Amino acid sequence: MSVHANLRGTGSDRSGRRRTGEVWLIGAGPGAADLLTLRAVRLIQRAEVIVYDHLADADCLDFAGPGAELICVGKRAGCHSTSQAAINAVLLARAKAGQCVVRLKGGDPGIFGRAGEEIEHLAQHGIRVGIVPGVTAALGCAAALGIPLTHRGIVRSLHLVTGHCRSGEALDLDWPRLADPAGTTALYMGRHNLSLLAARLIEAGLPARTPAVAVENGTLPSERRIFASIARLPQAVRTQAGNGPLLVIVGDVVALAPDWTTGRLVDLALAQHSSA
Amino acid sequence: MSVHANLRGTGSDRSGRRRTGEVWLIGAGPGAADLLTLRAVRLIQRAEVIVYDHLADADCLDFAGPGAELICVGKRAGCHSTSQAAINAVLLARAKAGQCVVRLKGGDPGIFGRAGEEIEHLAQHGIRVGIVPGVTAALGCAAALGIPLTHRGIVRSLHLVTGHCRSGEALDLDWPRLADPAGTTALYMGRHNLSLLAARLIEAGLPARTPAVAVENGTLPSERRIFASIARLPQAVRTQAGNGPLLVIVGDVVALAPDWTTGRLVDLALAQHSSA
Repeated sequence: MSVHANLRGTGSDRSGRRRTGEVWLIGAGPGAADLLTLRAVRLIQRAEVIVYDHLADADCLDFAGPGAELICVGKRAGCHSTSQAAINAVLLARAKAGQCVVRLKGGDPGIFGRAGEEIEHLAQHGIRVGIVPGVTAALGCAAALGIPLTHRGIVRSLHLVTGHCRSGEALDLDWPRLADPAGTTALYMGRHNLSLLAARLIEAGLPARTPAVAVENGTLPSERRIFASIARLPQAVRTQAGNGPLLVIVGDVVALAPDWTTGRLVDLALAQHSSA
Repeated sequence: MSVHANLRGTGSDRSGRRRTGEVWLIGAGPGAADLLTLRAVRLIQRAEVIVYDHLADADCLDFAGPGAELICVGKRAGCHSTSQAAINAVLLARAKAGQCVVRLKGGDPGIFGRAGEEIEHLAQHGIRVGIVPGVTAALGCAAALGIPLTHRGIVRSLHLVTGHCRSGEALDLDWPRLADPAGTTALYMGRHNLSLLAARLIEAGLPARTPAVAVENGTLPSERRIFASIARLPQAVRTQAGNGPLLVIVGDVVALAPDWTTGRLVDLALAQHSSA
């Protein structure tokens, strides 16, 4: 955990009164800082402490007030990873000290954001917790691709799942439930398990040619899009992706993207490569 | 369709140059105007025409520039409903006339927002279309309830589905796929079919006691929350809900809400009523 004061001013409480602390769990959105909500910006401006992680766009922190203390607990952007217990402890300590604490997370805090663990811990200690929703990655990436995630008369459901599992655990998802040719599936944190995920979905009945896309650094200037069929996507990601956060969308809506032709080209190239 | 100019200024194009028009499909978020994104606000400010519907909070339109023309095509807020074909036509006509057009929709435009139909129509005519994602209703309502939609080690997926179907069609959802005790289901536009939905989910294996909540006017001051088991929710909604937009969340995460005890009370009251 790296802690450093934001040196654009002082952090002192001018009123000097003892207040009740509060914690705001805030979704920073899918990447680009201008996808923050107005409510998120207002609370970031008001925060005395901001505990943040996994922010794709550090500009989100530019809204912090001059006296705000910024505490990085994320793995990316040169910070060391911090355990959930340590994060819970710092949130609690600052709230107990009467501070207005913002816990800033990428996307929406309630979608694979471990908000539940932080809420439970703080509630057990009587701390007030507010949640500010954010644009979750699947919605941000789909918008960047120019596609809807549902499509009237064709795709009537959207399934958000995580490909991440606890260290040492096997990925135990309900494959038949996920392999839905009539729905769209958005896969969060699926890079490590992408080959397994694709294989299991196909075994469970999803057609191998189902259109898919991996979006890296979605909504940022560095965004990269890798289109392929679900069968070909793992290899395409291995050869083309960098190390940024990856979101995978699987389903017929992907073929509505203006860039989808590159998916067909990737499929063709990989097929030729395999048979060479 | 009601059309009225925003009379705070003039709508004339001062440059007089013929420009290429563009259409922005913008998510207005789940209700409260301060859940708009910064990007949405900037584009609303820039728009020459705003075609809007289903806005839970009319304050979203306060960001419109003084010369912007506001066109209501929604069913609510005293407007008459407009056919999709008529909406497509007005978007196309204004973009062809070189205007900067904002199409403002509640929630996220790509989630049950019929964005696909508008994108296809505009793309066929060579109009540039941008999408600005928004906070979809499920995320906004969950944040207001104080619950996460996924919970590490317990709930690893979120399923968004619509209970709305085309006029005259039967509701034909994949019930076994939806009846997932290990996932959270968010049901959009499910008021009309709620009894059927609950019955089918239970038939397909979802425990009748699964916690559920119907959120009406989510994130607004008029928000109303109706907690009950999935088996009891339809009757509770019939007796307690008003006529506002309704989102239903089903799954064990609902019991994490501080207000969930009222759900148990509703179950008890309805059970006594039934046996009386």
